[in-house]
Amino acid sequence: MNNLDLGQHVDMLRTEAPLVHCITNYVTVNDCANAVLAVGASPIMSEEPDDVVDISNVCSALTLNIGTLNKQTIEGMHIAGKQAAALDHPIVLDPVGAGASKLRTATAVHLLDTLPIAVIRGNMSEAKALAGGSATTRGVDVCTEDIITPDKVISGVIFAKELSAQTNSIVAITGPVDIVANADKAYAVFNGSPLQERITGAGCMLSCMVAAYAALGHNQQIETVLASVVSMGLAGQIAEKRMQVGDGNGSYRTYLLDALYTLDGEALDQGARVEAY
Amino acid sequence: MNNLDLGQHVDMLRTEAPLVHCITNYVTVNDCANAVLAVGASPIMSEEPDDVVDISNVCSALTLNIGTLNKQTIEGMHIAGKQAAALDHPIVLDPVGAGASKLRTATAVHLLDTLPIAVIRGNMSEAKALAGGSATTRGVDVCTEDIITPDKVISGVIFAKELSAQTNSIVAITGPVDIVANADKAYAVFNGSPLQERITGAGCMLSCMVAAYAALGHNQQIETVLASVVSMGLAGQIAEKRMQVGDGNGSYRTYLLDALYTLDGEALDQGARVEAY
Amino acid sequence: MNNLDLGQHVDMLRTEAPLVHCITNYVTVNDCANAVLAVGASPIMSEEPDDVVDISNVCSALTLNIGTLNKQTIEGMHIAGKQAAALDHPIVLDPVGAGASKLRTATAVHLLDTLPIAVIRGNMSEAKALAGGSATTRGVDVCTEDIITPDKVISGVIFAKELSAQTNSIVAITGPVDIVANADKAYAVFNGSPLQERITGAGCMLSCMVAAYAALGHNQQIETVLASVVSMGLAGQIAEKRMQVGDGNGSYRTYLLDALYTLDGEALDQGARVEAY
Repeated sequence: MNNLDLGQHVDMLRTEAPLVHCITNYVTVNDCANAVLAVGASPIMSEEPDDVVDISNVCSALTLNIGTLNKQTIEGMHIAGKQAAALDHPIVLDPVGAGASKLRTATAVHLLDTLPIAVIRGNMSEAKALAGGSATTRGVDVCTEDIITPDKVISGVIFAKELSAQTNSIVAITGPVDIVANADKAYAVFNGSPLQERITGAGCMLSCMVAAYAALGHNQQIETVLASVVSMGLAGQIAEKRMQVGDGNGSYRTYLLDALYTLDGEALDQGARVEAY
Repeated sequence: MNNLDLGQHVDMLRTEAPLVHCITNYVTVNDCANAVLAVGASPIMSEEPDDVVDISNVCSALTLNIGTLNKQTIEGMHIAGKQAAALDHPIVLDPVGAGASKLRTATAVHLLDTLPIAVIRGNMSEAKALAGGSATTRGVDVCTEDIITPDKVISGVIFAKELSAQTNSIVAITGPVDIVANADKAYAVFNGSPLQERITGAGCMLSCMVAAYAALGHNQQIETVLASVVSMGLAGQIAEKRMQVGDGNGSYRTYLLDALYTLDGEALDQGARVEAY
Repeated sequence: MNNLDLGQHVDMLRTEAPLVHCITNYVTVNDCANAVLAVGASPIMSEEPDDVVDISNVCSALTLNIGTLNKQTIEGMHIAGKQAAALDHPIVLDPVGAGASKLRTATAVHLLDTLPIAVIRGNMSEAKALAGGSATTRGVDVCTEDIITPDKVISGVIFAKELSAQTNSIVAITGPVDIVANADKAYAVFNGSPLQERITGAGCMLSCMVAAYAALGHNQQIETVLASVVSMGLAGQIAEKRMQVGDGNGSYRTYLLDALYTLDGEALDQGARVEAY
């Protein structure tokens, strides 16, 4: 499907260069900042409750990532989220490890219940935990039985549409196949590389990128989310092609950022492997 | 101007290898640590109020960076700053995002008012916020109208000298042209690369490097600050020259650290593009 | 000594892929996560007191690293440690900067006194601080007089065995020569590269790797710790061989992760330089 014209969003983001407020975990925060810069936007990290309102005021979107929760951060997330909502900024929720601990599940569900989350971006285990299902996650990794492989696309699409209807959020579930859905329509993305699982942070980076794209703010929100998901997948493939003998996940991390940085709209349109459902 | 003999400071730093106490943000802290190591010094990060006095005691300089403030860190900054002051260690203030939030501006101004800050290192918007001007910052980025381009060097120099007189600190304002000033004299630095803005952390790294250089502690303090600013600019140029097809900000980050690591005094003297004002 | 068959542990780790709970510092946490992934295990970072029990429950080992202490983290370490102990998970203690501040020394000693620490991994100055000796550390660096050079192996071995007997932990002291000891036997490792000291985090990464290896949980625990120490040393050498003109510690960091990622059991057995004492 090339008639989606996803590349326009990639180029538009580099022109508009929105500021993105990120409350995220300290494991991958540096890669998140560099990923946002790579796609042409600008990140600012702030989680202190007394700081987040002012920062939200100067930004155009907000990412909430619960990867390394502490209680002060949770408070900052709620305050920032309320301000972002008041300003009609899109909010992206990354429920890292939801299902793996009561605190993570409860925090993600509480954010989802009290804030107008525009996009949920996680793996299938985390998404199931949000849906109140019987998900068990494997730490911050997806459970084997939850991985979206090509033969599970239809069931994944049905689940994602239902979760979208339940939460009134766009749902982006990533894995070997990625699914981007709202209540009415869904896309399956067949871009990506298995090496993305061998570095920390590919999901976190994507969640911040999704916020940057969502900040574009026109009426094609699901397509902008899709553009960011396809960007990460295609960048993963481009990075994989650069791997040489002796290279490992250190080099792959660098190549992935490089690929995000060099990707333009034309390349995205040529490389996108998307099916509508 | 090659008669400044800036290269001596680069070589001296590798010989003296001072310990630098860094209280900095968690976004770029890893790059800060590697930058301090790259120039031959040794970093130690500590912000817990009960830990910072002992750590200051074993170090020779202190960097205070407000990039990801929380209240506990602010308390740690003040306690560490008092101890560093008591020991006559140079203190470098990096007012990240001053002007973008009341908490950041107030924290930076309070640190400046209560501690003998040896060097202020920031962009022009942040510096204006400290000066009590009408600065509006663009998140943690400089505002377009504040960028020091070659045609704005004179006004930048005048401002920097005034801020130095007002604060009794050496002022290092970085941008396309960097300005290093005290109340009496100023230098403009024409080294640097536009790619330094496309990674997170070039400014944070520089602030930690400035502290390492300031630890050299001789009576040429403005010239040691200048040496660190020129080092970062020249490293930025060297890194840019290594960029190949397919490289982006991931590779650039690596090349920048590499260039800081390989730079010696002779290369600095040859590459420095400095004018005195 | 190639009859130790250390390589089997390297390959076994890639098959078993245990989840490792890491409470570590924010300076090097990203490299720690990528190092754990590089050797085939999976990391999860969690330090919030209300989160750590659930996370320990889904993991197989725990690393406690005191590199950037704050009081909440200390509480999280104790709670996680108790749960890990109840589950009979191995706990690795990395006493970063013990000896450099009263808080760090006291925290490390308290963890050691109250938890069944399986492995202590640090430099000689930190190990001496734990032993109650007169160690003075140089920040987070080892003191010059404490560095284990080839002529100090015997005294290092004696000290390590004594510390092991005193603490009932396996002791892994790293430096130009590494020593891995229990009360009865010790190994000296002559792998490694001086460049590992020129990046931040080689020690922190190793401590997380040690936990991953310890999670293998068979009855050769000292040999699994030894396998992880040799892996890091050999990876350091492989990374050094890749260094080209213009490369510095930025590239070295990448090469080190790459080498951990590509290392297999056969390469480890061929490259290991170990002597038993």
